[in-house]
Amino acid sequence: MHGIVLFGHGARDARWSEPFFRLAEKVRASHGSAGPVSLAFLELMEPDLPTAVAEQVDQGCDAVTVVPVFFGQGGHVRRDLPAVLDVCRCAHPGVDIHCAIAVGEDESVIDAVALYCLRQVQG
Amino acid sequence: MHGIVLFGHGARDARWSEPFFRLAEKVRASHGSAGPVSLAFLELMEPDLPTAVAEQVDQGCDAVTVVPVFFGQGGHVRRDLPAVLDVCRCAHPGVDIHCAIAVGEDESVIDAVALYCLRQVQG
Repeated sequence: MHGIVLFGHGARDARWSEPFFRLAEKVRASHGSAGPVSLAFLELMEPDLPTAVAEQVDQGCDAVTVVPVFFGQGGHVRRDLPAVLDVCRCAHPGVDIHCAIAVGEDESVIDAVALYCLRQVQG
Repeated sequence: MHGIVLFGHGARDARWSEPFFRLAEKVRASHGSAGPVSLAFLELMEPDLPTAVAEQVDQGCDAVTVVPVFFGQGGHVRRDLPAVLDVCRCAHPGVDIHCAIAVGEDESVIDAVALYCLRQVQG
C-alpha cells in the first residue's frame, strides 16, 4: 500500500490550512483505493511528518511519498524537510519513503497560477 | 495602464524565488502589453510591496492588482498584507490598488497541485 503525505509549512491561523484540506480531499478521491492520503506540517500545526508517516505505516503502507506543498525550494524544503525525512526513515527502515520536488516548481502548477493571476485583471 | 504585482513571502535562500520568476515571466507574456508585471515580497527579499507599487505608478499605472502567491489565507495575507496595502494606497491616492484572494484558494490551482501529487505515485 502506497501512502501520500501532503507536507505544508503550517500557520497560526487555522483558516490558512483550509485549501490543504480541499487538496487532500481531491488527491484522496483519485488515490484513496491505493492508499491513505494525509496532511502533515513543519510547524505551528499538527500532525508533524513523523506522526503522519507512522500512522500510514500502521495502516499497512510499505511506501510513502511525501509531497512538499511549498512554492519554492528554500530552506524549509532543502534543509528542514530532509532532516525530518531522516527521522522517518530511521523509524521505519522497511518502508520506502520518497520525497517529491515542491509543487510550486511544477510547470503545470505555475501555468494554473499564471492563469489565475491573469483572470484577476480581466473583466 | 494596469499593473500586476505578484506578492510572495520571501525566503533566505535565493533559489526559493526561482519559480516566482518563472511565474512572472508567464504572466508577463500574456499581460505585458497591458501593463507591467512585478514581483514583491513580504520579507527577506526585495523589493517590498510599496517599492514595487511605486515603480508601477512611476511607469504610468493608474490601477495595480496585487496577487498574493500564498497557499492559504493566514496571518500574512489577512493581517500583514492589508497593512502594507494601506501604506501603498496612502502613498498613491489616485491609483486603484486592488488585492486578489491568495492563489492557493483557487479551485483550478488546487486541481493542478492535486494532479501533480497524483503523478508522483504513478509509474
